[in-house]
Amino acid sequence: MRERPVIGFLTDFGLDGPAAICRGVMLSIARDAQIVDISHVVRKFAISDGAYLLRAALPWLPVGTHVGVVDPGVGTSRRPVGILAARGDVLIGPDNGLLIPAAERLGGIREARLLENRDWMLPVTSATFHGRDIFAPVAAHLAVGGAFEDVGAALDPGELVRLDLPHAVASEGRLDTGVVYVDSFGNLRLDGTPADLGRAIPELAPGAALVVELPTEDARATFARTFGEVAAGALLIYQDSAGDLALGESSGDAARRLGLGVGARIGLRRA
Amino acid sequence: MRERPVIGFLTDFGLDGPAAICRGVMLSIARDAQIVDISHVVRKFAISDGAYLLRAALPWLPVGTHVGVVDPGVGTSRRPVGILAARGDVLIGPDNGLLIPAAERLGGIREARLLENRDWMLPVTSATFHGRDIFAPVAAHLAVGGAFEDVGAALDPGELVRLDLPHAVASEGRLDTGVVYVDSFGNLRLDGTPADLGRAIPELAPGAALVVELPTEDARATFARTFGEVAAGALLIYQDSAGDLALGESSGDAARRLGLGVGARIGLRRA
Amino acid sequence: MRERPVIGFLTDFGLDGPAAICRGVMLSIARDAQIVDISHVVRKFAISDGAYLLRAALPWLPVGTHVGVVDPGVGTSRRPVGILAARGDVLIGPDNGLLIPAAERLGGIREARLLENRDWMLPVTSATFHGRDIFAPVAAHLAVGGAFEDVGAALDPGELVRLDLPHAVASEGRLDTGVVYVDSFGNLRLDGTPADLGRAIPELAPGAALVVELPTEDARATFARTFGEVAAGALLIYQDSAGDLALGESSGDAARRLGLGVGARIGLRRA
Repeated sequence: MRERPVIGFLTDFGLDGPAAICRGVMLSIARDAQIVDISHVVRKFAISDGAYLLRAALPWLPVGTHVGVVDPGVGTSRRPVGILAARGDVLIGPDNGLLIPAAERLGGIREARLLENRDWMLPVTSATFHGRDIFAPVAAHLAVGGAFEDVGAALDPGELVRLDLPHAVASEGRLDTGVVYVDSFGNLRLDGTPADLGRAIPELAPGAALVVELPTEDARATFARTFGEVAAGALLIYQDSAGDLALGESSGDAARRLGLGVGARIGLRRA
Repeated sequence: MRERPVIGFLTDFGLDGPAAICRGVMLSIARDAQIVDISHVVRKFAISDGAYLLRAALPWLPVGTHVGVVDPGVGTSRRPVGILAARGDVLIGPDNGLLIPAAERLGGIREARLLENRDWMLPVTSATFHGRDIFAPVAAHLAVGGAFEDVGAALDPGELVRLDLPHAVASEGRLDTGVVYVDSFGNLRLDGTPADLGRAIPELAPGAALVVELPTEDARATFARTFGEVAAGALLIYQDSAGDLALGESSGDAARRLGLGVGARIGLRRA
Repeated sequence: MRERPVIGFLTDFGLDGPAAICRGVMLSIARDAQIVDISHVVRKFAISDGAYLLRAALPWLPVGTHVGVVDPGVGTSRRPVGILAARGDVLIGPDNGLLIPAAERLGGIREARLLENRDWMLPVTSATFHGRDIFAPVAAHLAVGGAFEDVGAALDPGELVRLDLPHAVASEGRLDTGVVYVDSFGNLRLDGTPADLGRAIPELAPGAALVVELPTEDARATFARTFGEVAAGALLIYQDSAGDLALGESSGDAARRLGLGVGARIGLRRA
């Protein structure tokens, strides 16, 4: 017996119905699917938030076909695409950068294709709801065994739209990075890992003091393993559960205190 | 092998447990079901909101047994009912109008029955939680193959309680309609389709100016295909993803700006 | 064919991804599981809220393996544990009291064990995300047939950490109890049942007037079957859908009006 197919599913549709409509469309084609709701409360139109959450979640799901829909350009000329990642997953959604960080985390882009196969879409495709009309049914056809090359023509992966996200750059004595997500506690998730920080600042041990260079001022933070290692109200640089660097405030909300959001540039050096 | 049964499920129970209790009851009877959560954050006691969301979602789900619970009259004499729709779905819930718009969208009511079969309910039925004690287990028994006529005595569908919802009426030069739902963006979803509007105002083309007659004043709106076709802050009449008319504000919240909610009457005529 | 295993799942992780990561880990091991999300919006770090919701929900789920994660002590020396309940369920989570009220509601603790079997955990276990690294995979291994004794060494159940929750005590003419949960309507859920109240105050009939002794003042309430039996704004003592006592305000929010929360002590006597 074939294993039940897994479909990861992320949107900014909220909790009042559109995600269920897509789920209904998927189950109409792939009745046996295990659909995993990654989130449907992504900030409306926040492509980079969706990209961060897909990248964080998909590596922990079984290999499958995954749908991401944060799509302010729906109804314009932005293209619907499918991306085959090296791990074997296929990611389905708009060509706006949403899917690429996850594909890279899944081993990199092996192949990209336009979604063109009208037999795998709903008979009528609206101008405003491609999640229902295109992405969900195409993903479900793949989930029940459809071949990736049957979705449409191959694309040069270099042509795909990419987000301009902060990238950690280590230089002698400093790491330049930036905020890629603000979590529900107000912690600022940064690009880069403790290993990147260690390359910039060798022999950095837990408890070490850091200067955090912010857009308008500098602040002090402790390089710590857990929130409990610093006093309430103190800032810390720690490794989040995804393995990346984050800037938090113990018993507080760092994003609100520092007035920073996604895209803000941050520099780290030894105090 | 029999296909896995689908159960659509909508309540105003919120996200802190009661919906999971109902899901547990359903799975105790129908272990293999694909339960599709349509929404559990329907405004508390807002029967018409629940009715709108069921009507919007169910046509996109596979044929199945569906449960709707927005039930301010639980524990009173309001009756528990089942409705067989022409498409083949059975809708289970309170006789308060919640289920009827969806049944009509699924081809119309073929048969209505009281829920009376105590063998399909939990042994003890409380005064306050019929979702758990009656609706969920009856639906699950139907999902695993129970016959609809076994739920209880037939009812005259004309006796079912119906909501007093706005209905679009086209006359020469004007469409009288009203607000049937306010979505999470503040768009006012109206009864009626662009075809209804076209019958009232022939040769209406995208870009045409309309007068929107509101309870206390008149406003101007553009008949448009997408929000991007009008300036930020401008009102537009557009076709929503369900195929119906809606009144929105580009980059804004039309409901808040106009101070309107469900039930408000709206007239549309050429400017 | 073996029935599909059920996994109940409760966390305070919110709706933006971590619960989906755990679900992905579970499905990687137990592809066929029916995972029932009890709640993921438990108040952050509120162990007693999570304990209340698990206790309320699990008796209605099929016998299964259930995961609870409200875990402010993650990364400290608090132990990961499994509890076998008399009904046959296994509860997996932190040893902080979260699981015990549910286990007692499921017939009592038959056996408790440390989670030590590294073959059932993820290869790397982080300091901050035991839901993903330990609890989810251990539960999934049990769900697919793993033996409970293989999770780790037996513990004396008397050694498990327990919450200090209010317990109803009936004496002549009065019931001393306290608030164990505040629901989304602001109703104060109390420990104890109408039977307990009846032992304290014999021949108490619906409609009877009660004095509610609060920390700072006394109030009047009616012992009623439904909210509709008292005037809007009046307090009532009623039996909630879990079968326990609750203190509510008709058409109002009792918690806000009385300024009370979880742990507050309440006395009930005849007026």
